[in-house]
Amino acid sequence: MLFKLLCHCLGLLCVVFVSYWNIEWRGGFAWDASFLQFNWHPVLMVTGLVVLYGNAAILYRIPFTWSQRKQHWKLVHAALLLSSLILSILGLCAVFDFHTGYHIPNLYSLHSWVGICTVVLFTAQWLLGLVGFLSPCSPLGFRKLLKPVHAWMGMAIFILSLASCLSGINEKLNSTAAYSSHPAEALFANFLGVLIVAFGLVVLGILSNQRWSRLEPGEESSRVSILLSAVIS
Amino acid sequence: MLFKLLCHCLGLLCVVFVSYWNIEWRGGFAWDASFLQFNWHPVLMVTGLVVLYGNAAILYRIPFTWSQRKQHWKLVHAALLLSSLILSILGLCAVFDFHTGYHIPNLYSLHSWVGICTVVLFTAQWLLGLVGFLSPCSPLGFRKLLKPVHAWMGMAIFILSLASCLSGINEKLNSTAAYSSHPAEALFANFLGVLIVAFGLVVLGILSNQRWSRLEPGEESSRVSILLSAVIS
Repeated sequence: MLFKLLCHCLGLLCVVFVSYWNIEWRGGFAWDASFLQFNWHPVLMVTGLVVLYGNAAILYRIPFTWSQRKQHWKLVHAALLLSSLILSILGLCAVFDFHTGYHIPNLYSLHSWVGICTVVLFTAQWLLGLVGFLSPCSPLGFRKLLKPVHAWMGMAIFILSLASCLSGINEKLNSTAAYSSHPAEALFANFLGVLIVAFGLVVLGILSNQRWSRLEPGEESSRVSILLSAVIS
Repeated sequence: MLFKLLCHCLGLLCVVFVSYWNIEWRGGFAWDASFLQFNWHPVLMVTGLVVLYGNAAILYRIPFTWSQRKQHWKLVHAALLLSSLILSILGLCAVFDFHTGYHIPNLYSLHSWVGICTVVLFTAQWLLGLVGFLSPCSPLGFRKLLKPVHAWMGMAIFILSLASCLSGINEKLNSTAAYSSHPAEALFANFLGVLIVAFGLVVLGILSNQRWSRLEPGEESSRVSILLSAVIS
């Protein structure tokens, strides 16, 4: 419970910090292919691809959901991730429009390579999740096969999104000449990076704790039989 | 087995790529506080903090070690991580010396903040691991308490090291004016970043697969009883 509360507080702080950074030091927001449109990019990526995504990922680890029908929580999980995906795509539109407006080439930096791969993988993961887990005609065997891949790919996408955010903040601050003299903006945005790392590690900590995973009746018996055979042998 | 082979191949490619990048485009190596000393920084960090560290982390997941005495493999794990730690500290010395030589401030960028935290956490983790798991006077209760924290912290340090490497490569390439026009160096170093991501995801995939974890007799019975009680209730 403490971890979940910490997760929500850190997520909220990430959104507040990334918004304040772009309002206070970057001139605020617009949607006119100017650098003010670029400012939507970090806000939408941090809010969508980190905070909303992280909260959607730990949804099944909240104990009070375990006693309720899983189908409802699958829909909430899918809806949260769809919101996250939409914000991420809008965040990409913001940067592509800005690049077009200022005749800056797209997708040349390592940050952009990792970032675009993250969103492409996320889109594929969401669509596969929809077909595999929410479609009524998806066979049980396929769901069982897909589940560990879905969980693993979900964690991988989250790690890639954390790395993209950190390299993106670093890249943006590097373009300010005074970065090395520790201006207030640099300290603030570096601290935003630290908050993103802290949020990410708390989410990954919750996900990696087996005690917090929702127990599936079918899985329990198979896990018990595997463990029993290992003990007996 | 295929995953372990992939892990070794990707690790080797990372070391070859980071070395070739610094020899071919950055002028090679020296230890004279010049920019040639800086070139040791990416090579030592990728080799130590990513490749050696990753290989040390998956050591207990190699099936042929399961039938052998764990104490021997603990020593190999600790030795590999000590080598990784020494290379990382040398990598930090390389960049601090270069900064001193060129009057560049230290620890101003987000990359440096995340990087230094990674090495500090790694040092603490190694020392705590030495005291907790290799010292003969460490009580069994303390070891049991420490193990999940050690495994979790180990994964967190590895994720931080991946994020540090990606932001570092991005930062270095950003200082080359021609980065946005896709020069050969940028494509090569971006591809190094992709290799590091691929290596990292394979290592984390191996670590997250419960089937590859070494079974501890005490743990098996407790895990079975927990699962049995969950099934029965």
